[in-house]
Amino acid sequence: MVIKPYGYGIWENMQKTLDKMFKDTGHVNAYFPLFIPKSLFEAEEKNAEGFAKECAIVTHYRLKTDPNNPGKLMVDPEAKLEEELIVRPTSEAIIWNTYKGWIQSYRDLPLLINQWANVVRWEMRTRLFLRTAEFLWQEGHTAHATKEEAIIETEKMLNVYADFVENWMAVPVVKGIKTANERFAGADETYCIEALMQDGKALQAGTSHFLGQNFAKAFDVQFVTKDNKKEFVWATSWGVSTRLMGALIMSHSDDHGLVLPPKLAPIQVVIVPIYKTEEGLAKINEVVFKLKANLQAKGISTKYDDSDTRKPGWKFAEHELKGVPVRIGIGERDLENGTVELARRDTLTKETVAIDGIEVVIENLLNAIQTNLFNRAKERQVQSTYLVDTYADFKTTLDEKPGFVLAHWDGTPETEEKIKEETKATIRCVPLNNMQEAGVCIYSGKPSTQRVLFARAY
Amino acid sequence: MVIKPYGYGIWENMQKTLDKMFKDTGHVNAYFPLFIPKSLFEAEEKNAEGFAKECAIVTHYRLKTDPNNPGKLMVDPEAKLEEELIVRPTSEAIIWNTYKGWIQSYRDLPLLINQWANVVRWEMRTRLFLRTAEFLWQEGHTAHATKEEAIIETEKMLNVYADFVENWMAVPVVKGIKTANERFAGADETYCIEALMQDGKALQAGTSHFLGQNFAKAFDVQFVTKDNKKEFVWATSWGVSTRLMGALIMSHSDDHGLVLPPKLAPIQVVIVPIYKTEEGLAKINEVVFKLKANLQAKGISTKYDDSDTRKPGWKFAEHELKGVPVRIGIGERDLENGTVELARRDTLTKETVAIDGIEVVIENLLNAIQTNLFNRAKERQVQSTYLVDTYADFKTTLDEKPGFVLAHWDGTPETEEKIKEETKATIRCVPLNNMQEAGVCIYSGKPSTQRVLFARAY
Repeated sequence: MVIKPYGYGIWENMQKTLDKMFKDTGHVNAYFPLFIPKSLFEAEEKNAEGFAKECAIVTHYRLKTDPNNPGKLMVDPEAKLEEELIVRPTSEAIIWNTYKGWIQSYRDLPLLINQWANVVRWEMRTRLFLRTAEFLWQEGHTAHATKEEAIIETEKMLNVYADFVENWMAVPVVKGIKTANERFAGADETYCIEALMQDGKALQAGTSHFLGQNFAKAFDVQFVTKDNKKEFVWATSWGVSTRLMGALIMSHSDDHGLVLPPKLAPIQVVIVPIYKTEEGLAKINEVVFKLKANLQAKGISTKYDDSDTRKPGWKFAEHELKGVPVRIGIGERDLENGTVELARRDTLTKETVAIDGIEVVIENLLNAIQTNLFNRAKERQVQSTYLVDTYADFKTTLDEKPGFVLAHWDGTPETEEKIKEETKATIRCVPLNNMQEAGVCIYSGKPSTQRVLFARAY
Repeated sequence: MVIKPYGYGIWENMQKTLDKMFKDTGHVNAYFPLFIPKSLFEAEEKNAEGFAKECAIVTHYRLKTDPNNPGKLMVDPEAKLEEELIVRPTSEAIIWNTYKGWIQSYRDLPLLINQWANVVRWEMRTRLFLRTAEFLWQEGHTAHATKEEAIIETEKMLNVYADFVENWMAVPVVKGIKTANERFAGADETYCIEALMQDGKALQAGTSHFLGQNFAKAFDVQFVTKDNKKEFVWATSWGVSTRLMGALIMSHSDDHGLVLPPKLAPIQVVIVPIYKTEEGLAKINEVVFKLKANLQAKGISTKYDDSDTRKPGWKFAEHELKGVPVRIGIGERDLENGTVELARRDTLTKETVAIDGIEVVIENLLNAIQTNLFNRAKERQVQSTYLVDTYADFKTTLDEKPGFVLAHWDGTPETEEKIKEETKATIRCVPLNNMQEAGVCIYSGKPSTQRVLFARAY
């Protein structure tokens, strides 16, 4: 996966926003090694087992000239590592091995650390932004003196993610808890946010794990309490990745291309001049330079696309494709009338507005677009969430009206597995604060106390 | 290498500053893969040869349960890659393979792209921050239509680095050009900035390479010119890394610990309350909360260290160790007098100053410390730069007065190699705008037209 500059600009905006949210909730950044020695990697058995099948492994540390192939290189068999190195698929092992040296007493707790990093998970079927061998992410790893504190942290970070995805990405989510089958390998509980894409498939947008004392026990991380007892440390980890770029694209795009929420758009406003003569352009420039400066003074990222190698029509299409929220077209006749043409990307509508005071109009418009994108996606999510009471209906709904399906389940991994095999639908989560309601499992007919959220997923 | 939160805070400040400088000079960020297929890696032969001996190599993509070792994992021999993957030691190969698809016409040029990433170079002897198997860096990779433009870019980025290292890190540098021996593998010319550490050893702090058409030819990247001809693209690359953290530490630290230049310090001002009673603390708090808010409003990063688990003396030592530029001590008696104790880290001096108007005093003091650190390092560099005219003097100087040595050299790689073998000193660079001066080579006695900069180096 290569992330081109415009796409990376979106990721930079995501990073900046999330990083501030993490710091505002008391976290600091640090950096841990890319390579995990195999003996450390396998220390927490469930975690190791969960990731073993998708690990890139470094076995050698040198190339040499290939004697049979002039100008080519080959792996030097004499440079074989005594212990193989795993390219991190996630960093719990290396981080908890490090925390062991950092935590002695309750005074050293909590540790609230985040890392921005690349990770590698060898995927047989890759899908751009959603499932790539290497991806960029952040992973928070916190250490606490008590179980209660760790659970509060797990839930706090889930809420940070939900806040970010809903209020910056304009993508509504369902917050919930994963079933044991879908839990992160090595966690006692996995919290998640699930989003619904336009095609009716679910996308896991972020996870926050309560790791219990599993890693503390695997790496023997104990601390001395205030009353001088030794106890194992409690842990959480939580992450979101460049997968969010996929969620953004699939939530808002239309046939004309990307549609970006203003809060994350690298360019919020693009201004395109429409002119016939150099004098005409000079007059437009005069107005635009001032307008651009005014917008930027308001913190609005503005691009003046005055390149002379492309026609206005080409530029309009290009900026639509790139999802720039607001476009201003300004021609010579507009100047005479003191107006511009203002186009919004979300609705593809245009209107003529006075230049005088347009900065406030644009500011409000950006907010309106942000709100509209969220409301539109939320409306779609609500319309595509179905209550289903029989297995026949369940299957028909998945095929004919793809979306979220709320249905009763008997709570067993076996039933969950059967439903997945037969329908490709998985339990996305048990929603938080789920309504309790007596019912019968759509598959087994056994009693159930609540509906869970099913969907086919990316 | 693990970068702990406080150290990572310094790196974040470096990143933020450099990133802005890159963007202000027209560059954008992007991201390219960590793994480079061997066939791409070896395409530019000199570059491949230069890095072949220090490459981590991924050969397998799966672990499996070890049948002979319950609970342990082993590399699955059936999951051997057909083509090995090189963990990037630098990204020219993967990036130029990508640029091939991005560049068709002169309209696509220049490409001015930077990447923030981790890279791996297998080092036999590692040294914290200076030489680690994995390190963090940025690597700029630009593509140009003409040789002239590429050289201008190479020099521009060298100047950006020099500006950053001198004016943010407060570390003076010598700008110059590497000899052919010391040139980056695959470059036509390597520009560098060289700094002198307190122990008299040189440290290469950043490099900017003019790559000619070497990578364009290796990856067949051609473009159609305005007059419809096909030409190979011209390239540059440039990078600085977490090695700068080492330069920072070794330039300014003293026996009490780190000394950080205010412009990069995660905490610029620390305030320590000195109190006997809770009421005393309450009174101090009242003053400090207001002072801290005022300082932060001026963009000064301020920490109020009011933890009650440590005594003031412990805190003073701790913040000295961490190199916090300015410390304010405030006690109950100070309150009565309307004063505080103001200590500066660079000179370890203290004075009593009025609280009233102290914000401006501190602002000026931070600037004064920044300037003082640079001047002090510059003075040391000037004092430790020696003009030497005989090989005997050269050797004595290196042993007895370690530093930069300016000496005549006959310009041949053979002489350079001999001097290195016999003295462990290398030519750090031929300084830019070097004074031309007739002389004889200290080693061979052959004629020379200029002195070059020698030193023992990290």
